[in-house]
Amino acid sequence: MAEATFDLIILGGGPAGYNAAERAAHGGLKTAVFEERALGGVCLNEGCIPTKTLLYSAKILDYAHHGEAYGVTVTGAFLDHAKVVDRKDKVVKTLVSGVAAKMRGAGVTVISSSAKIAGKTAGGFAVEADGKTYEAKKLLVCTGSEAVVPPIPGLRESYAGGLAVTNREILDLRTPPKRIVVVGGGVIGLEMASYFCSIGAEVYVVEMLDKIAGPTDADISKILQKNYEKKGVKFILGAKVAAVNGKPGDGVVEYEKDGKTEKIACDLVLVSTGRRARTKDIGLEGIGVQMNRGAIITDEQCRTSVPGVWAAGDVNGKIMLAHTAYREGEVAVSDMLGVKDRVDYRSIPSVIYTNPEVGSVGETAESAKKAGIEAEEAVLSLRYSGRYVAENEGGDGIVKIVYGKEHHEILGVHMIGSYASEIIYGAAAMVAKKQRVADVEKLVFPHPTVCEVIREAMFSIQ
Amino acid sequence: MAEATFDLIILGGGPAGYNAAERAAHGGLKTAVFEERALGGVCLNEGCIPTKTLLYSAKILDYAHHGEAYGVTVTGAFLDHAKVVDRKDKVVKTLVSGVAAKMRGAGVTVISSSAKIAGKTAGGFAVEADGKTYEAKKLLVCTGSEAVVPPIPGLRESYAGGLAVTNREILDLRTPPKRIVVVGGGVIGLEMASYFCSIGAEVYVVEMLDKIAGPTDADISKILQKNYEKKGVKFILGAKVAAVNGKPGDGVVEYEKDGKTEKIACDLVLVSTGRRARTKDIGLEGIGVQMNRGAIITDEQCRTSVPGVWAAGDVNGKIMLAHTAYREGEVAVSDMLGVKDRVDYRSIPSVIYTNPEVGSVGETAESAKKAGIEAEEAVLSLRYSGRYVAENEGGDGIVKIVYGKEHHEILGVHMIGSYASEIIYGAAAMVAKKQRVADVEKLVFPHPTVCEVIREAMFSIQ
Repeated sequence: MAEATFDLIILGGGPAGYNAAERAAHGGLKTAVFEERALGGVCLNEGCIPTKTLLYSAKILDYAHHGEAYGVTVTGAFLDHAKVVDRKDKVVKTLVSGVAAKMRGAGVTVISSSAKIAGKTAGGFAVEADGKTYEAKKLLVCTGSEAVVPPIPGLRESYAGGLAVTNREILDLRTPPKRIVVVGGGVIGLEMASYFCSIGAEVYVVEMLDKIAGPTDADISKILQKNYEKKGVKFILGAKVAAVNGKPGDGVVEYEKDGKTEKIACDLVLVSTGRRARTKDIGLEGIGVQMNRGAIITDEQCRTSVPGVWAAGDVNGKIMLAHTAYREGEVAVSDMLGVKDRVDYRSIPSVIYTNPEVGSVGETAESAKKAGIEAEEAVLSLRYSGRYVAENEGGDGIVKIVYGKEHHEILGVHMIGSYASEIIYGAAAMVAKKQRVADVEKLVFPHPTVCEVIREAMFSIQ
Repeated sequence: MAEATFDLIILGGGPAGYNAAERAAHGGLKTAVFEERALGGVCLNEGCIPTKTLLYSAKILDYAHHGEAYGVTVTGAFLDHAKVVDRKDKVVKTLVSGVAAKMRGAGVTVISSSAKIAGKTAGGFAVEADGKTYEAKKLLVCTGSEAVVPPIPGLRESYAGGLAVTNREILDLRTPPKRIVVVGGGVIGLEMASYFCSIGAEVYVVEMLDKIAGPTDADISKILQKNYEKKGVKFILGAKVAAVNGKPGDGVVEYEKDGKTEKIACDLVLVSTGRRARTKDIGLEGIGVQMNRGAIITDEQCRTSVPGVWAAGDVNGKIMLAHTAYREGEVAVSDMLGVKDRVDYRSIPSVIYTNPEVGSVGETAESAKKAGIEAEEAVLSLRYSGRYVAENEGGDGIVKIVYGKEHHEILGVHMIGSYASEIIYGAAAMVAKKQRVADVEKLVFPHPTVCEVIREAMFSIQ
């Protein structure tokens, strides 16, 4: 006999899960969410939000340090890392409570436990949690992802001993490292490098590829790297980490580059080499859910291979971003409710919250070429913006428009510079709606803003 | 015999004029711009850009003062107003040179002189400047606007004596006032009040209406006022200034409110009660250009009543904003070139660069009601944004969506809070494209951002 029966059981209360739960409940489905940790998932507890809280404090410090160029003299500026971490905890707590209140408000049942799919039943599926059995007509799997700790000699031991940390542990350190090695120059690595650089640490970024920031446009990656090199971050690209040894405050990272082995002494190592879908031990195999390299295979409606089971968020291994997860959760619920909907993976924006910020959406010239799309690109300096000039002494930001050669439809927009994080959504709408260059030329952008360079760039396209 | 003959003569080298000149030259028209002062107009020399330069320095100071709440202790933060003004001059110079370079690059002839329409000729129009006569097939009038100095007893004398200033003079003061009275609580008044408040002056805003920020949504006006009251600005609303007397550093503003007369002692008075189109002494009457209360009457193609004569920018007295001027200049040129185009006055965004910022586009609930449009509104706190919570201790920002009751088309978006200036263009596109609430729900906004509250607000609409 089931403890309780639902229309929908959601495994995981992160962005995909909690958002889907709210939409499903509003859509009339009796919904339960199972979450063993805090609501909000990695994003809220160990990712997006905590890092942005830290980075904002670092920005205040940056402002104080750079005030002189803008007529503002600051004699003493000091960031108290422990206070910043305390504040981060407070912000996270506030937002986790907000999610819990949302769940209550929508009438969603939240069960604080891990859960495992026990099998199919006559009416749907059985789920076991905390020794009890629950039933639901439909399942939505939103179990997210976890940091990969790669098989580098000594790394597992260093992780166990506290010299090496992932995104999870680093956010709770109350004493910041004086020397940190970031292994992996993707978004997470760069944001943390940015923070520790701002607060005065010696920062090394070791990256296997010959560029930072993953799939980001190559010119923008270079500008970002140059900005951080000026601030003192040391980038070691095309390098393979060979060993990590030592204890917190006294560690050594060995890497191979161009056939030579070098060593860096450090206090802390951040491992940010990638994330993998969390699909183990939740009973997916038992009901026959198909997977690819450990991630659940889903279509544009977030359906899995098993009717009645959907999956959303990092667990599908597609685009591991919180806002992708939100949208996937919504689309899965639309599909459950018989509403036509799909995830448009072409138009999902991404942001790197460094200083300068990076905002991107859609094809880069490189990805378009790989996909066989005939595309061209227009590039314009952000110094075409009066506001940018007013606010950025020596700023070298740019915006790039990638557009179809024949019809001038906007395929991608990429920018580095102030406010890029808040500007890029409008460009994502252009890509989603397949707008053409001439359409955007007719829109009115407010002046003086940084965003108006997007429009100006359109006029450079003949 | 004409000194030179052009396809197009543009009177005035501000945003409407210089932008139209560039587009016209690219469109193949032999174009001349007449400008007696610096290129860039009020916007670049005495408006948008100088104020944003000042406000950015003030923001750095604000950050330093408020760092404590974010774990950053700053001691000895000091803004040197004279240095800020020097930097403002440098920024303006850079951007004016940029406009001049644009004109050269496009092959536009720039003539540094005022100009007057002398009359019609066989081939078009004659224009006199500096004792010479020029001819053109077409004219575009972009002579802009000037600050109104209202007939308040003593004000004209105070203006002559330097106690009272307009947007033009205030930006060049090298010694800031300790006590300033701002007459007129519109955008210009509020931005300057914001600056002087940040740098520690005693600031009074006297406004005739019972709210600040002109046509801005009433709730947003109230939030803005509350924020500045907390910072110490004193607002005197529903008050009429009765007299301004004294000299710089020793002045008195008398106002009447609720039947009583009160006095404020001050060092400086900023007159920001409105602007009027500059249409005098430029020969408009001679060729029969129709006007209304001193502004040139234009249609959606920026045509005047005289074939062959267009007008763009503040001179038409419609929406006195630089980006409106840009767009009007472009539309006028499209019309000259036979390209179908129009100015969509419904979807022009506006920004107030206070801290918090205000961004607005389209109808407010109030304006919709006046226009007889059946509209509803959805309001959401910006505290639904994790980034907003991370970056704004005690923040009280909101976003409002105004939408059609029947079809849920987006009629207006209004917000107060961080990044509003750079976010609102995307909302302007929604209004311009007549998107519906359900369309925006399907777009993916990056997380964590402040802009994503716009999307979240859509979901509160049933």
